Amino acid sequence: MKVYLAGPDVFLPDAIEVGRRKKALCERYGFVGLFPFDNEIPKQTRKRADRLIFEANLAMMEQADAGVFNLTPFRGPSADVGTVFELGLMSGLRKPVFGYTTVLAPLLARVSGARRGEHGGWQDKDGYSVEDFGNADNLMIDGCLAREGNGIVRADGGGRLDDLEVFEACLRLAAERLRTTLAHRAQAVGQADTRN
Amino acid sequence: MKVYLAGPDVFLPDAIEVGRRKKALCERYGFVGLFPFDNEIPKQTRKRADRLIFEANLAMMEQADAGVFNLTPFRGPSADVGTVFELGLMSGLRKPVFGYTTVLAPLLARVSGARRGEHGGWQDKDGYSVEDFGNADNLMIDGCLAREGNGIVRADGGGRLDDLEVFEACLRLAAERLRTTLAHRAQAVGQADTRN
Repeated sequence: MKVYLAGPDVFLPDAIEVGRRKKALCERYGFVGLFPFDNEIPKQTRKRADRLIFEANLAMMEQADAGVFNLTPFRGPSADVGTVFELGLMSGLRKPVFGYTTVLAPLLARVSGARRGEHGGWQDKDGYSVEDFGNADNLMIDGCLAREGNGIVRADGGGRLDDLEVFEACLRLAAERLRTTLAHRAQAVGQADTRN
Repeated sequence: MKVYLAGPDVFLPDAIEVGRRKKALCERYGFVGLFPFDNEIPKQTRKRADRLIFEANLAMMEQADAGVFNLTPFRGPSADVGTVFELGLMSGLRKPVFGYTTVLAPLLARVSGARRGEHGGWQDKDGYSVEDFGNADNLMIDGCLAREGNGIVRADGGGRLDDLEVFEACLRLAAERLRTTLAHRAQAVGQADTRN
């Protein structure tokens, strides 16, 4: 079973090493980890490197059976937008998705200058409203993972992007859930076989 | 033709009014605009409001024929993560997507403390690499819109979230593209009819 490993990990100075470790952990749980950096972008081409990376990542996601997303805040109060785009995409492709963050505090606690506005709701320093649902991030992100019955794995890893303990907790959850899904599917197929 | 109107506009103090104006502009281009705030969330329910909003927005996107996304930077150098999640989702659902931003400068210019690192590439103040492709945002976002042949409509609207001129330019593009798509589809159907 192939699992796409999305996250801002690709922006780390030691991204290749982090990817190697994540893939090794995947193996322990019976998964083949697909890490974006694995895509070898051909050098002798007239096509823009960014478009080639986009196409390669897209192909990886289409090929993957599920996705594990590092939703740790990146350059602001929220998750990396590249990762979030991919979460939406794999969800739209109806693939099982799992997410984790190494920050325990909810989004509201991370929005700078958040205060109660005139009408009682929370506002940021620019007067834009801030959600107050105790979620890890924007309600679309938490909602997506809640809908799958998984939620976001939230644990204190000091906001580190390369924390592998929280990643492993998420991987463990993915392994349990996917085993159940596969068992149900096998059972359904078995029942169908009996009926025929 | 129904168009989902995604964006951080929902966080503006006058979100309802902005939604009303956007929908009025949609009508001019022959679209029915679906604005997230139109979802009336039932008050007498035990279900969490955030989950109900998620479900309502998801249903709107599934119902929509296309999406127009406000990708103007929000609380950081990148677009709003809720909007980006929805862009990925509608792209995964194979619906035509269009995007705009009211900031002309590329992502690199907005990442605070970006400088050349040891190996020549760009890094932010934390040492994380920064893309240097001249894109409006993360390459997955620009790549998604480039793939559709539309790109991101980038115009100087001072970074305002409620700039309707840039929104209208994007709507115009959507109208042209969707007309062409529909014409092609009609032609294809016509040819199929002739063959039968």
